[in-house]
Amino acid sequence: MADFAATKQLFSLPKGVVYLDGNSLGPLPKAAMARLSTTVEEEWGRELIRAWNSAGWMARPRSIGDRIARLIGAASGSVVMGDTLSIKVFQALAAGLALRPGRTVILSDTGNFPSDLYMAQGLCRLLGNRVTLKVVEPEAVLGAIDDQVAVVMLTHVDYRTGAMHDMAAITAKAHAHGAVMVWDLAHSAGAVEVDLSACRAEFAVGCTYKYLNGGPGAPAFIYVRPDIADYVEPPLSGWLGHATPFAFELAYAPGRGIERMRVGTPPILALAALEAALDIFDHVQMREVRAQSLRLTDLFIKEAMTAVPELELVTPIDANRRGSQVSFRHPQGYAAMRALIDVGVIGDFRAPDIMRFGVTPLFIDEADVRTAAGAVGLVMRERRWDNIKYRERLAVT
Amino acid sequence: MADFAATKQLFSLPKGVVYLDGNSLGPLPKAAMARLSTTVEEEWGRELIRAWNSAGWMARPRSIGDRIARLIGAASGSVVMGDTLSIKVFQALAAGLALRPGRTVILSDTGNFPSDLYMAQGLCRLLGNRVTLKVVEPEAVLGAIDDQVAVVMLTHVDYRTGAMHDMAAITAKAHAHGAVMVWDLAHSAGAVEVDLSACRAEFAVGCTYKYLNGGPGAPAFIYVRPDIADYVEPPLSGWLGHATPFAFELAYAPGRGIERMRVGTPPILALAALEAALDIFDHVQMREVRAQSLRLTDLFIKEAMTAVPELELVTPIDANRRGSQVSFRHPQGYAAMRALIDVGVIGDFRAPDIMRFGVTPLFIDEADVRTAAGAVGLVMRERRWDNIKYRERLAVT
Repeated sequence: MADFAATKQLFSLPKGVVYLDGNSLGPLPKAAMARLSTTVEEEWGRELIRAWNSAGWMARPRSIGDRIARLIGAASGSVVMGDTLSIKVFQALAAGLALRPGRTVILSDTGNFPSDLYMAQGLCRLLGNRVTLKVVEPEAVLGAIDDQVAVVMLTHVDYRTGAMHDMAAITAKAHAHGAVMVWDLAHSAGAVEVDLSACRAEFAVGCTYKYLNGGPGAPAFIYVRPDIADYVEPPLSGWLGHATPFAFELAYAPGRGIERMRVGTPPILALAALEAALDIFDHVQMREVRAQSLRLTDLFIKEAMTAVPELELVTPIDANRRGSQVSFRHPQGYAAMRALIDVGVIGDFRAPDIMRFGVTPLFIDEADVRTAAGAVGLVMRERRWDNIKYRERLAVT
Repeated sequence: MADFAATKQLFSLPKGVVYLDGNSLGPLPKAAMARLSTTVEEEWGRELIRAWNSAGWMARPRSIGDRIARLIGAASGSVVMGDTLSIKVFQALAAGLALRPGRTVILSDTGNFPSDLYMAQGLCRLLGNRVTLKVVEPEAVLGAIDDQVAVVMLTHVDYRTGAMHDMAAITAKAHAHGAVMVWDLAHSAGAVEVDLSACRAEFAVGCTYKYLNGGPGAPAFIYVRPDIADYVEPPLSGWLGHATPFAFELAYAPGRGIERMRVGTPPILALAALEAALDIFDHVQMREVRAQSLRLTDLFIKEAMTAVPELELVTPIDANRRGSQVSFRHPQGYAAMRALIDVGVIGDFRAPDIMRFGVTPLFIDEADVRTAAGAVGLVMRERRWDNIKYRERLAVT
C-alpha cells in the first residue's frame, strides 16, 4: 500500500505554499542535491573522464529509461533518455513517416502541445511539404483517421483541459487504417496509468520535469515498440546511437534496438537529479497514484465549484476521460490565478481563460486540496483580481 | 596579464594526477557545486515554477551564449545554448541546405568528428538522398570546394591529430563558390583564438564539456551570422524558438534572430554548472590562453620526443596549423596509454594507434607537462605495456 504521507516527506516544499503546478515543473526531491553532489564531486571531480565507464555514465540513458518504462507499461529495454521532448517528437515522427513511405498526412489535434505541432510543421517543410500536418479538434480525431494518414501524433492528456484521449481506441483505429501511432506522455508519465505494451503504439515520448519531478529542463524519453526497434530508421543519427560509437567509423550504422534513438553525449548532471526523483516512484504503484489522484481531483472539483459556482469545469468529470489536473474556465482567470499565487496557492494559467491546477498525490494531500479550494473561494468571492497588488498571505500551510 | 597559477586554483584536481584529457571532459570547477546548489535549492526548491522568470532561467540560453560569443569572436546576441552538439550540427546543416536549394553536396573531411558525418548522413537519408555527403581527406578540402557544394562542414581542430584548418582561407573559398560554411568548434572554443566575425562563416557549433569545462553532457551552442539570422529557416522548430512561445499558437512562427535556434525547454541544472566554468574565463583573454598553450605543447613535444624518439608526432609542429592537443602515433599506443593512466597521467587513445594529450593552460602548468613527459619516457622505455597490470604509482604531483 502506498504511503503518500511518507512520499510527501521526500520533497522539499516551501512553507506557506500549496503547489498545484507539478504538471508544469515538479518540486525538488530532497535527495536530489546529495545525488548531484555524488555525481559532481565524486564522479566528475575525482574520476574525471574515467567516470564514463567507472561510474556507469554511458549506460544511464538506458538504465533510467528502464525505470521510466515501468511507469508507462513498457518492457525493459524499450525506453531511452536524452535531449528534449521536442527533439524526441521529431525522432518519432520522422521515423514513423519512414515506416509509411507512400502516405502523406500527419494527423494531430488542437489539444496537442504546440511544440509538437511546430516540430511536425518543421519536419514537413524540411521534406519539401510532400507530407502535411492535419490538425483537427480532439473530438474529431477518431473520425479523421483514414488510409492517407501516415502517423497519428497526439498528446495523451490535453495540457489545457486535462482531457484524456482513449489510448487503446485511437491506437486501434490508427492501426486498422495502417497508420503509425505516436503518443506524447508529457502529462501522463507519473500521473496516470499507461499501458504501452497493451495498446501496441509504435512510439511514445515524454518529458520528465512535470509529474516525474526531474527538475527544470530534465531530459526527455522515447519509447519504440520492441518488435520494430531493430529496423526503425533513426533520423537524428548521432554517434551514441551508432552500433560501435567508439570505433569512430566514418559511416553510420544504427545500434541495436532502442540504442539507435540515442543522439549525443548524455546530460549526466540532469540525469542524476532525475534518478533521485525516480527513487520516489519506487515506493508506489501507478495504480495507487491514479486512484489517489482521482480522489483528490474529485474533492477539489467539488469544493472549488461549491465555493465559486460560476467556475466552468473544462476537465471532463468522467474519470476515464481525464488526467491528473483540474482546469476551470473563468473570464478573470489570469488575474484570479495571480491573486491565488500571491496567497501561496500556485497553479497556472493558459490563454485565453484557463486556470490549471495539477494534483500530484506524491506530495499533495487532502488538506492541501481543501486549503486550495478554500483559497479559490476566498480570492474569487472577494474579486481579488480588482486589486491584485494585495499581498497579505492567507494561512495556507 | 593572465595568472594561470590562479586559474589552476579554481579547479578541483585529484592529487597524483596530471589531467591531459580536458579536450574530452574538462575537470570540475570548484565553484560548480555552489552554483548548482543555488540553482537547485534556492531557485528550483523555493521558487518552483516561478523561477523561470524570477531567477532568469528562460533567458539563460541567450545570456550564456553571449559569454561563449566573447570566446569565439562572435557578436553579442549571435549565440544560443541548448541540446547537444550533434543536434546543433543538424540544425546548422539543414538550415544551410535551405539557403542553397539548388545544390546537392555537403562537403566534409575524414578528420571531422564521426557524429557530424553521421548527422549529415541521417539528414541526407531524410531528404531522400537528393543531397549527398562527400567526405575527402583534410588536405583535399580546399580543392574539393566547387559550385555544386551547398554546405562545407568541418571541425576546425581535428579530434585525432590536433591539426587545425585555416578557417579564414576555407571559409573564403567556400564563399567564392557560393557555399555556406559550418564550423564545428568542439576542439576550438576555449582552446584557440577564433574570429567568427572576421571569417564570416554562416554557422558555427560547439560543445562545452571539453575546453570550456562545463561538465559531462553540458549543453551545446550554435552561432548564426547576425545578418542572416532573421531569415534562416529553423529545421527543428520547437516552441522556445517561436516568436511568442507562451501564446501557445497552433502555427509556428520563428523568433527573432538567434532565438529561432532554440528548440525545447533549456537544461537549467547543466547550464548552472556551465556558468561556474565560464566564470574562470573572465580572468583571461583567449590570446593569452593560446600563447600559453603553444608554449606548453612545444615543451611537451620536445620533452616527450627526446625521451621516446620512436614516438611519431602526428600533430603539425607549425603553430598556425595545430590546436591545443598533442597526438603521437605508436603501435603500442593503446597499452601505453593504459599504463600512463595507471601512473596518473591521464590522456586518451583514439583508434587505431593515436595517443592524445590535451594541454589546457587554465589548469595545466609547466611542471605538469614535465611530469607527464617524464612518465611517457619511463612507461614507454620500460615497455610497461608488457605488463599493464603494474599498479605502483609514480610520484606525479
